[in-house]
Amino acid sequence: MPQDVPGLVARAREGGSRAVARLISLVEGASPLLREVMAALAPLTGNAYVIGLTGSPGVGKSTCTSALVSAYRATGRRVAVLAVDPSSPFSGGALLGDRVRMSEHASDPGVYIRSMATRGHLGGLAWAAPQAVRVLDAAGFDVIVVETVGVGQSEVEIASQADTSVVLLAPGMGDGIQAAKAGILEIGDVYVVNKADRDGADATARELNHMLGLGEARAPGDWRPPIVRTVAARAQGIDELVAAVEKHRAWMAEHGVLTARRARRAAHEVETIAVTALRERIGDLHGDRRLESLAVEVAAGALDPYTAADKLIAGLTHG
Amino acid sequence: MPQDVPGLVARAREGGSRAVARLISLVEGASPLLREVMAALAPLTGNAYVIGLTGSPGVGKSTCTSALVSAYRATGRRVAVLAVDPSSPFSGGALLGDRVRMSEHASDPGVYIRSMATRGHLGGLAWAAPQAVRVLDAAGFDVIVVETVGVGQSEVEIASQADTSVVLLAPGMGDGIQAAKAGILEIGDVYVVNKADRDGADATARELNHMLGLGEARAPGDWRPPIVRTVAARAQGIDELVAAVEKHRAWMAEHGVLTARRARRAAHEVETIAVTALRERIGDLHGDRRLESLAVEVAAGALDPYTAADKLIAGLTHG
Repeated sequence: MPQDVPGLVARAREGGSRAVARLISLVEGASPLLREVMAALAPLTGNAYVIGLTGSPGVGKSTCTSALVSAYRATGRRVAVLAVDPSSPFSGGALLGDRVRMSEHASDPGVYIRSMATRGHLGGLAWAAPQAVRVLDAAGFDVIVVETVGVGQSEVEIASQADTSVVLLAPGMGDGIQAAKAGILEIGDVYVVNKADRDGADATARELNHMLGLGEARAPGDWRPPIVRTVAARAQGIDELVAAVEKHRAWMAEHGVLTARRARRAAHEVETIAVTALRERIGDLHGDRRLESLAVEVAAGALDPYTAADKLIAGLTHG
Repeated sequence: MPQDVPGLVARAREGGSRAVARLISLVEGASPLLREVMAALAPLTGNAYVIGLTGSPGVGKSTCTSALVSAYRATGRRVAVLAVDPSSPFSGGALLGDRVRMSEHASDPGVYIRSMATRGHLGGLAWAAPQAVRVLDAAGFDVIVVETVGVGQSEVEIASQADTSVVLLAPGMGDGIQAAKAGILEIGDVYVVNKADRDGADATARELNHMLGLGEARAPGDWRPPIVRTVAARAQGIDELVAAVEKHRAWMAEHGVLTARRARRAAHEVETIAVTALRERIGDLHGDRRLESLAVEVAAGALDPYTAADKLIAGLTHG
């Protein structure tokens, strides 16, 4: 396939799903063409609304994502899903029922669904996910749902970089505690108790309310994360979830928070690209041998890792 | 508490669990004292055997870790557990039954159990976990079990940096596929089908055997990861698991693989410290304002993130 970047970008901009797929594959493969791609895309970005959706395995993230897609499609919006969750049916690990449930979107040209795999790349998910979002944004999607599993440092961080971060829980003993320990209770703008028709949904909502300190007084104008109850498999509560997301969006716009949040996200993206480039330079500069010989000394106890890191950096910045 | 590094190191070396705890807290807090600590510890390291233990939530990692601790204690070895798994009972999110099960180790001075929390620190788990292992190694533990949840890029990577990586699965539909997608099937030196008394254990073992290509021919001398069946809650199969780990250890020693693997681990550790230091420098050099102003341009679509990263790096290495 010829690597015609301007052509690819133009076709992606026109909504060509194959061009979008090709651009995201360039991200996954950390292609050297990405510089040119991102330069071409930059003026086209900033229009999509990015929703992060995360939660422990089994809480129903993909079902909820699928229902969200339907709800936004019903309002005419073009929707993209980026699944960086290995347990997501969108990324191929689904049981049959899940696949059937989401196949409803397969023939809809206003929906684009993509899973990400970046194992092995130096910068990993933190490097790749924002660039994939950038592609989808430039391709004209109105809403981008980034689904990540709410376990794992990188994954929780990606979910926290959205315009609105939605955190899902489901009734179950200790679920709230696990969520708290995974750090996802710190990042939600909207909380969802999914599978709300099950026993324990009230207890989960109460526990969540307590852990989030939602009963406590807040400064006027502060955002108070709502708790929405859904049964995503039957699309119950999804309109309320969309309403909660839209309310958060309106609140951010009103308080100037959206611009600040997007600048913070861009800062994170730029920093990750810079750090990854520096890591590559560490590898290149010494043909990896400098690091290797330092590592042998460290492994033998002859050198501590900080002194070794100093030597590595000295070679990098003065070499 | 006075920050007497030589005293702390000496007390940790004598097996003082409070001194060990204090040193690991310095790691968690990314203390500036760590340079001095790691310099003092370096000559004392390299004696512990590091076992990584990972698997999806619910497969019984902590129960298995606890049983491993008992088995190694029965042979007189001092054992440390580092739990970087937010769902681990060792790290505080346990149900009552789990807590009771592991309390057997609480009064044993030959066992040290510690959970890690590093949220918020720049280098994260990849930065902190190896340094905590270094502390435990220098403190004279013979065996260090690093338990991580097998979901999440950083977490799987940490488990892969062990001397022997043990990957746990449990019977359940689709579990093998999920494990494969999370990347943990690529890192195991020893595989465990836990809860092997349950229906589906044979199917899981067969599936695993197939996915790992264990039936295929290998070069003579290649390591063929064994699949061990355990019922960790009843300590069944744990002796076989220990035997499999020890067999892998002996194989590595015989083939010179252990030294190479430890050098690779040290290289990863040094690189992570260097990259984290460079990230701190990015922040310090410009008082964060350079990054912020670049990010505002990127968020507005006026600049692409690669060009912004170039400008950031230029300021770093020539500034």
